[in-house]
Order: sequence, then C-alpha cells, then structure tokens
Amino acid sequence: MGRWEPNARGRLAEAALELYVERGYEQTTVAEIAKRAGLTERTFFRHFADKREVLFSGSEALREHLVNAVAGAPDSAAPIAAVTAAFEEVGVLFQEDRERVLRRQSVISANAELRERELIKLAWWSAALADTLRRRGVADPAASLAAEAGVAAFKIAFERWVGGPGEPGLSQLIRESFGELKTVVAGG
Amino acid sequence: MGRWEPNARGRLAEAALELYVERGYEQTTVAEIAKRAGLTERTFFRHFADKREVLFSGSEALREHLVNAVAGAPDSAAPIAAVTAAFEEVGVLFQEDRERVLRRQSVISANAELRERELIKLAWWSAALADTLRRRGVADPAASLAAEAGVAAFKIAFERWVGGPGEPGLSQLIRESFGELKTVVAGG
Repeated sequence: MGRWEPNARGRLAEAALELYVERGYEQTTVAEIAKRAGLTERTFFRHFADKREVLFSGSEALREHLVNAVAGAPDSAAPIAAVTAAFEEVGVLFQEDRERVLRRQSVISANAELRERELIKLAWWSAALADTLRRRGVADPAASLAAEAGVAAFKIAFERWVGGPGEPGLSQLIRESFGELKTVVAGG
Repeated sequence: MGRWEPNARGRLAEAALELYVERGYEQTTVAEIAKRAGLTERTFFRHFADKREVLFSGSEALREHLVNAVAGAPDSAAPIAAVTAAFEEVGVLFQEDRERVLRRQSVISANAELRERELIKLAWWSAALADTLRRRGVADPAASLAAEAGVAAFKIAFERWVGGPGEPGLSQLIRESFGELKTVVAGG
C-alpha cells in the first residue's frame, strides 16, 4: 500500500465513527478502524495520535473559526456580540453536518473519559476567545467573562439541539440561549 | 500501628500538599506521603483512592455546601441571586483557608492532568447547581444557564483572588465578577 492514499484522513475518521457507533468506543481497536477504511495502522498513526483523537480532530479547526470570527468582528461590536456571532457561525457548520455531529455526540455521551475530553475542549475554546478579545483591546475580566458566557450559552444550546429534532436550527438556539442568559444574569 | 489514627485523613492531606509543593506532584509517591504523616500506605488507601484524589477530597463538601445554599435560598430569590449567594459563602470558606488554597492551587497549575481534573470538578458543581435549581421549580434552560453563569463568574473571581494579594476578599471579588458578567452579557 502506497504512502499516499486519497482522503485517508476522512476515510479513517468515518470508519472510526461507524465502528464506535456499532460496537462501542472501548471495544474498537485502531487495527479495526484501519481495516474498515481499507488502510493500514501505520497510515492511521500518520493522521491521528490515538483512537480518541479521531473524535477531536475537528476541534482545532472550530477553535480557529471562532477566533477568526471574533478577530474579524466590526470594531464597534461589543465583546459579547462578537462572541455570539462567532458561535452562530459554528452553529451553521454543525447544522449542515447534523447527522455526523449527532453520531459523534452519541459516542461521547456514552463514555466518561470522552465527556471529560469534551469539557476540556470547551475550556480551550474559551481561553482562545478570551485571548482574541484581549488582542482587540478588551480588558480583563470582561474578556474572560464574555468568553466564558459564550461557551456556556453555546453548551446549553448545543445540548438542546442534540436532544431536539434539529429545527429550530443550532444558530437560532444559540441566539435564544444568549438571550436567555441575558435575562437570567440580569436576575429575571 | 493500630487501625485508628487521630485525624489520619487531615495529616495525610497536609503531608501530601507539603510534598507536592516541595518536590512536585509527579515526583511524590504515596509511600512518601504516608511516611511524612507518620502513617502507613494502608492507612492512606483507607482514606484516598490515589494521590490525585487527596487534592480533590474537599470538592464534594464544597459541592454540598453550594447545593444546600441554593436549596435554602428564599423562595423569592432569583436563580442567579441564589447561585451568587452560594458562591459568596464558598468565597468566605476559601478566604479563611487562603494559605492552604494557594498552595493547592500552585500544585494544580503546574500539572495539566490536575488542571483538567479541576475543570471537571467545576462542571460537576454546575450540574449539581442546575439540578438544585430545577428542584426549586426553575425551568430549563434558565436553570442550566444560571448554574453555568455562576461557575463562570466564580472561576474568573477565583483566578483574580489567587493572583492577587488576598484583599479584596474572594467573596467581594465574586460579587464584582457577577456584576461584571451582568454588564458584559448585557452587551455593555
């Protein structure tokens, strides 16, 4: 088998997700993932550090997307507005890929270690957003609080979206979640 | 050595913290902790699952404290007010024990695995607070959002308090953090 395989990364990620859903995450080996994808274990390890990282390989791109959206927000945008808009963009991406996102989430929910990894991912997003706001001249604690509030609103909207029929879409649920956070924090 | 040792748990926890600060968390063994405390490894494992759990043995009591404070808030209290008051109480406890809290935090900060465990602790507090609010009749997503907002405001206040001189006290920083969160979320 040659060194270069067309879309090896995508094939491995899809094979892994299929197997995690069919057999469970713990029960699936890297050898089985490679076999299902028609590739070698060696190829797997050229793309992913381990079987857990297959599930989190998109996190960095999403973090970049969030950071770029906040960095590119109009100068006049309040920190929370920049953060809300960034998460709404991510909402659109998730909506377009709902079927895969739900399969991934069913695997995460079934495993304590993966649920913890997911929390760490959100904390990492929050830290990146706070950094980006500081680079825009937002002082702390406002930068950190806006980032934390954004992640909290996203997290709750995401849970509702995963548990619901997919309509209203995630972007709308994120907007609603920010609105409800505003009411809640104001003491209403 | 008898089965019963006066304040074995407290002595082990203090010995562990001393050693983690002196030598580093990774470099310290359970045998060394037991020896420093003048106790046996067997006694250590009667009190703690492993050397990591020594650092998180207070988390459950704090979670209970938060839950009881929210459960006991006046019926008229808005969810965010009940959550704020609960965290202010925890702020008083931390303030009284600042020296030990700071030593513990220096150990946590130096180790990625411990920082992750700390995030998971906060998520667990948030889930417990949301449950308590739901039992008080607060609907979701308001219950989850109030809990998440509370944890976010506490987290930022705690970081400021750890990095500062200890005055203003943690309770006051928590109150300020909630006030700033309100301003930030309102888009100000």
